[in-house]
Amino acid sequence: MSDRSDRPSGEDSLIARYFKPLATDPGAFGLRDDAAIIKADGCDLVVNTDAIVEGVHYLADDPPDTIARKALRVNLSDLAAKGAVPLGFVLTLALREADEGWLSAFARGLGEDAQIYGCPLLGGDTVSTPGPVMISITAWGRVAEGRMVHRFGAKPGDRVMVTGTIGDAVLGLAVLQGKGAAAALAHDEALRAMLIGRYRMPQPRTALAAAVRDFATASIDVSDGLAGDLAKLCAVSDVTADVELSTIPTSPATAMLLAQGVADIATVISGGDDFEILCTVPEARCAAFASEARRAGVAIAEIGVVVAGKGPPRFVDPQGRLLALKHPSFSHF
Amino acid sequence: MSDRSDRPSGEDSLIARYFKPLATDPGAFGLRDDAAIIKADGCDLVVNTDAIVEGVHYLADDPPDTIARKALRVNLSDLAAKGAVPLGFVLTLALREADEGWLSAFARGLGEDAQIYGCPLLGGDTVSTPGPVMISITAWGRVAEGRMVHRFGAKPGDRVMVTGTIGDAVLGLAVLQGKGAAAALAHDEALRAMLIGRYRMPQPRTALAAAVRDFATASIDVSDGLAGDLAKLCAVSDVTADVELSTIPTSPATAMLLAQGVADIATVISGGDDFEILCTVPEARCAAFASEARRAGVAIAEIGVVVAGKGPPRFVDPQGRLLALKHPSFSHF
Repeated sequence: MSDRSDRPSGEDSLIARYFKPLATDPGAFGLRDDAAIIKADGCDLVVNTDAIVEGVHYLADDPPDTIARKALRVNLSDLAAKGAVPLGFVLTLALREADEGWLSAFARGLGEDAQIYGCPLLGGDTVSTPGPVMISITAWGRVAEGRMVHRFGAKPGDRVMVTGTIGDAVLGLAVLQGKGAAAALAHDEALRAMLIGRYRMPQPRTALAAAVRDFATASIDVSDGLAGDLAKLCAVSDVTADVELSTIPTSPATAMLLAQGVADIATVISGGDDFEILCTVPEARCAAFASEARRAGVAIAEIGVVVAGKGPPRFVDPQGRLLALKHPSFSHF
Repeated sequence: MSDRSDRPSGEDSLIARYFKPLATDPGAFGLRDDAAIIKADGCDLVVNTDAIVEGVHYLADDPPDTIARKALRVNLSDLAAKGAVPLGFVLTLALREADEGWLSAFARGLGEDAQIYGCPLLGGDTVSTPGPVMISITAWGRVAEGRMVHRFGAKPGDRVMVTGTIGDAVLGLAVLQGKGAAAALAHDEALRAMLIGRYRMPQPRTALAAAVRDFATASIDVSDGLAGDLAKLCAVSDVTADVELSTIPTSPATAMLLAQGVADIATVISGGDDFEILCTVPEARCAAFASEARRAGVAIAEIGVVVAGKGPPRFVDPQGRLLALKHPSFSHF
């Protein structure tokens, strides 16, 4: 018998070292098993899976802890948009090599977010790849039986609401890539850092999940761009929408880049990576929803109205002109 | 508004075309939503995630339908080893390009297996990657509350049992790679095809799940090699094991290659990709377990005994000699 055979393999020790400390839920069995158990008690378990790929969803030199946070948060954003409270997640990690510095920071960021959002790691798989790093997460959330909020369900007259601000992430990416936004903000490190932070670290609107569940007729998280995601929501709801461009919430940095002509509104509403909640609420309930959002500490804006009809939503500027969009959202293919 | 914007993106139409037909479970909402619901009713949901990577877990020119089947079956194999009945899965697919011929065959294989194994697709994510294709699946199964079979729990005196045959998959890979096994079987296409089939299409022992749940004290599926996986089971159970090499079940093809010296027993028991169930059963219950296995139509063999102590299991040949293993199992790093 080889003298190496009683030592754990590199893969096992990597898992034990970096991920076992995160697996604190009893159902994870300390990652010593092939599978995990989720106890359910009459509620609905909402499951979501989203992957991020190096060079596609994040940049190779992004800090590893923010990469991990982004991988988890894009899933938490989906759960929040569905009205669900996070329960736990599993992770598949495809790596070229086991770089301990990278992994240690990655696992630290992941563990911190798992704690912040009350969403424990339940299991996973680590594989080698000759290609780009890929992180695939499947996350579950709990929602009262039959209460998950769907993409479909928007009705003519409902108001279109969106959380936070739109466009920061795509401009943060532009800064990282040294595009126009980088030069325009060359002397304002704070604004650059804010935009970059919005690209690297989505803020899932978990705090709004209960209000979305109670008030929204339809809901989606904005991952591929506001215009494209609203078009998806409308299409499955068999409606369309009218949106006033001037009411779309933007941060001071994005507003400034728009005013200077460095950024254009089409990029802002179709760039993606916002991870805000876009939902529709009956007009009579908008005030109560806004009040719940304030209580939850989540900014919310009314940007338009659902109307009967087919076709993509119309985006209208303050002069009443229709915006033409070549690519309403990001698509991988 | 662009005339293209009311058409679905390539990604959406790809999903609608290839994966929506598979999502027949009501909880999948026809893949029109970001998330899926799993109804639970007092049972435990067992969740497992396993990924396969092109060039690592399968060959780039493997038929796409077998790639899909392998991706699902490696997960079903885990569920069976845990005593769970499959409920559903989500899929993350990272592709370089949307090759319709490849995707169509991939989806067909996946859909057929989803039906065969009663394990519907519940959701997923499709992303682009400049690197190798990667398929990550998270699957759930149902097991009566508290009845999941763990890796730990093996007791001294328990018998070590394994399903099916060991070593075929690693020799099938050797055939595909044109190694010695290919030359030795040059004139026997049926045996070559059998071994290749065992590499490309694992046979998850789903039919044995109930018996494993009722009789096994510990259980694991053989994915990284019999020797290494038994070592893992023993380590977390705080025991070791004695295995008689002559009792390890092999197919006629593998037995022939062993007899001819083309394959060696170390490769057979450490090559991996067998996807058989390896479990431990109290001696007094072995006959009843074997009888249940016969009823389920799954071949099962007793290959050794659990003994008190530490360290890796001992593999002994008919002459009483201890086998020295340099690499008891496959590791990614």
